[in-house]
Amino acid sequence: MGADSRFFPARGPFRLADIADSLGARLVAGEDREISGVAPLALAAAGDLAYLEGRRHIEALRGTRAGAVLLGEEAVGIAPEGCAVLVTATPQLAFARAAAMFHPRPAPQPGIHPTACVAADAILGEGCEVGPFAVIGAKAEIGPGCIIGAHAVVGAGCVLGAGSILRAHAAMEHCLAGAGVVLHQGARVGNEGFGFVTTATGEHVTVPQLGRVILGDGVEIGANSCVDRGAGGDTVLGPGTRLDNLVQIGHNVRTGRGCVIVAQVGIAGSAELGDFVVVAAQAGLTGHIKVGSKARIGAQSGVMNDVPPATDMVGSPAWPARETLRAFARLRQLAATKRDDKTGGTQ
Amino acid sequence: MGADSRFFPARGPFRLADIADSLGARLVAGEDREISGVAPLALAAAGDLAYLEGRRHIEALRGTRAGAVLLGEEAVGIAPEGCAVLVTATPQLAFARAAAMFHPRPAPQPGIHPTACVAADAILGEGCEVGPFAVIGAKAEIGPGCIIGAHAVVGAGCVLGAGSILRAHAAMEHCLAGAGVVLHQGARVGNEGFGFVTTATGEHVTVPQLGRVILGDGVEIGANSCVDRGAGGDTVLGPGTRLDNLVQIGHNVRTGRGCVIVAQVGIAGSAELGDFVVVAAQAGLTGHIKVGSKARIGAQSGVMNDVPPATDMVGSPAWPARETLRAFARLRQLAATKRDDKTGGTQ
Amino acid sequence: MGADSRFFPARGPFRLADIADSLGARLVAGEDREISGVAPLALAAAGDLAYLEGRRHIEALRGTRAGAVLLGEEAVGIAPEGCAVLVTATPQLAFARAAAMFHPRPAPQPGIHPTACVAADAILGEGCEVGPFAVIGAKAEIGPGCIIGAHAVVGAGCVLGAGSILRAHAAMEHCLAGAGVVLHQGARVGNEGFGFVTTATGEHVTVPQLGRVILGDGVEIGANSCVDRGAGGDTVLGPGTRLDNLVQIGHNVRTGRGCVIVAQVGIAGSAELGDFVVVAAQAGLTGHIKVGSKARIGAQSGVMNDVPPATDMVGSPAWPARETLRAFARLRQLAATKRDDKTGGTQ
Repeated sequence: MGADSRFFPARGPFRLADIADSLGARLVAGEDREISGVAPLALAAAGDLAYLEGRRHIEALRGTRAGAVLLGEEAVGIAPEGCAVLVTATPQLAFARAAAMFHPRPAPQPGIHPTACVAADAILGEGCEVGPFAVIGAKAEIGPGCIIGAHAVVGAGCVLGAGSILRAHAAMEHCLAGAGVVLHQGARVGNEGFGFVTTATGEHVTVPQLGRVILGDGVEIGANSCVDRGAGGDTVLGPGTRLDNLVQIGHNVRTGRGCVIVAQVGIAGSAELGDFVVVAAQAGLTGHIKVGSKARIGAQSGVMNDVPPATDMVGSPAWPARETLRAFARLRQLAATKRDDKTGGTQ
Repeated sequence: MGADSRFFPARGPFRLADIADSLGARLVAGEDREISGVAPLALAAAGDLAYLEGRRHIEALRGTRAGAVLLGEEAVGIAPEGCAVLVTATPQLAFARAAAMFHPRPAPQPGIHPTACVAADAILGEGCEVGPFAVIGAKAEIGPGCIIGAHAVVGAGCVLGAGSILRAHAAMEHCLAGAGVVLHQGARVGNEGFGFVTTATGEHVTVPQLGRVILGDGVEIGANSCVDRGAGGDTVLGPGTRLDNLVQIGHNVRTGRGCVIVAQVGIAGSAELGDFVVVAAQAGLTGHIKVGSKARIGAQSGVMNDVPPATDMVGSPAWPARETLRAFARLRQLAATKRDDKTGGTQ
Repeated sequence: MGADSRFFPARGPFRLADIADSLGARLVAGEDREISGVAPLALAAAGDLAYLEGRRHIEALRGTRAGAVLLGEEAVGIAPEGCAVLVTATPQLAFARAAAMFHPRPAPQPGIHPTACVAADAILGEGCEVGPFAVIGAKAEIGPGCIIGAHAVVGAGCVLGAGSILRAHAAMEHCLAGAGVVLHQGARVGNEGFGFVTTATGEHVTVPQLGRVILGDGVEIGANSCVDRGAGGDTVLGPGTRLDNLVQIGHNVRTGRGCVIVAQVGIAGSAELGDFVVVAAQAGLTGHIKVGSKARIGAQSGVMNDVPPATDMVGSPAWPARETLRAFARLRQLAATKRDDKTGGTQ
């Protein structure tokens, strides 16, 4: 079963040989076969293309009904008879590209919905789609081919690069964004950060938050995630950085290129991440720390200090992963000792 | 003091004997008494019905001014004089039903608000209420008696069963939902999941997310919670499953019947939960694991492996609760040992 | 570089002597200098006022190009030549006030946007600004000088005090709010809490949630945060309490004055916080506990029991901070012991 055509109308069908050509994959028989969609191994039917990456789904490959499968050289013999095989070094990447042949990201339907509220001095590039009840503020500049979804808000003075998308209920303010940026539903970009000074009598006095948010090309912000604007100076997410849902980014955080921030992570103010840092789900980073490029932070970790490049950290407070896993094993063993043996406590 | 009539207009008053009848409770005197509302023991006045479940509020019972109280057989003698008593094996459940007699969930006010934006080929059942600035997409099918709140969005092609409710700013896309489903404010259902492949040069290439979200009858999604659609195949929440606020559900997660997912929990892609699983607040489940029916996951736990049915897990990484509590006690004791005693380290 | 004038139009310039006067700071030379904005030390130019608090940025002070700097008596000699110095005991607070001289919070632009949907019997005070697609329900009462942002929703019967602000997509229902309250983007106040009773057959029956939310003067609720209304009785946030983004507050929680609740914290139902409690990011508090005034809860902590006043707690489960840090150090040391030494386990 391929994708539900109510939600994902498909292009095609395509000849398998043409698909192999586009993907740069080597086709093992079946070049005339027509393929009409993509599906996971376990759900694919005779008209579908599937893929195998790694060994997790090898049983699913043996039993698949897919018409064709993308896989690595080492798995060529495993596909069932009748299933055509496309060999590639990167099956999942090839699958992503094949899926986009059948189901390209919907292009903007150019036009401004009659209910949208667009400031007279806002500038919209060619071919933009502006949905119902969208609000575009004064002097905002939106590049060509953008989609501004239902109820989305682009604040006064914001800049949004070509081919960007704001999904329903997303909002940006005080923000300069590059091309190909995506804000998923309910994303909040450019809000006032959590900045105040507490007086001797306990009154919290707001420090005016006078910075911006700068989003590099291709940045994606997940549903209901929040990226606060800088207090002074800017909050910056480098090109290609992706945030999952419900992520919190404090004021003046900076990330390099291609960082991956998984769901429900929180990064406190002025933390700096290098390039290609991965922060797994529900982890927290304290403010004013530096995390080196290609560091990886484990799920639910609590990082309180600088992290060197290419280092894996886990735990709360976070330690280097190798050391921590050894310590966990040892503590588990110690915890199993009896209260009254020689290792007993001070009581 | 009962409920604020500005927000909760009340039916009634009702005779206590009639209330007892409806609830199947045994009335101990006071059948002619009129009751005009419900309230907690500590706040109830002479016209109010309250309840006692368990022993937590037994002092509040002794001091209550409630006109009547629902309680179990074992507590009959404790209520103060002048307070009528309704005996039942399930006082809180009876209270919930009594509260709904006085304050039923507001029925839809049939009609489409003039500002709402409803596609010409969308199908709405009888008696639906569609609020201001609601957006209903092409070919969406909405069952009878639904409430689509202010600014709520029902995406193109979505199906929503009878008597369902979308509160303000809720949105669903790529979703087939059963009857009696509730999306609270700002809930996001059917967004693109966090699916991409990273190339050798560090570029993140989106894997088209071609699945749906399937919500069983009576599913409730809390405020600002997110349920991503499947990558291929579907994300499925079984009938009666309830999510609290700010919960994250990754693509292709599946739950059985009646699961309870408390606030700020995150469940990563392709995890599978059986029936009646309880996941307490801020816990995280890693992807591709199976959690057996009636398992219970403690608050802030981090579950990295399969969990057998009816098992309690706590900690991060999570262990079975009994073992963990013992280990914690032992570690606390070990931690209290002195650095220089016989258990000393390697230094 | 001061603030981007596209987003933050500035008042001024002001004479430095006048700024010093307003702030009650002592000016060390340069009284005729004109200052046109504020900026952090590292970004400030000749026309900008900056500040130094504590010792973190002392190198930035030595290298700053700021025209003037606010600092404490102890740092007077450190500012570079040509940089005027304003001495004060509270540099950051003085800076906040100076920043507000140049960039006061934008005043409401009185008027109701033609697209807004305001109930005929709602009451709006003088000088309110109501943005596009805002919805104000029946009999709502909004004090003078409020800003109701784009797409914001004020539910029927709500009361909102003078000078309050709802930013884009914020919503309040069943809520009585004081003066100077701020709901940031996507904040959800007054939703139904997570209250239900589970029957013997596993059905979850909703307990009608019949309480309200009471917000004291000056309360701020961060972007996409959720404050559930009371189940019976009210959820109450005391005056001056501030919530960061993505915070969850359960039904019937009560806080005192001036509490600070950092991003992604969750506080379960009926917990009670005293005055000036600080809960750091991603911490969780279980229901029905009491946290004393001026207690401080560490990031990612899990608090399961009452906390005495003025106590610091860390860890999950949380212990007093001093004890925990000692225990962590000891456990780290124990974890470094070898498996086969005298402290070995039971195997």
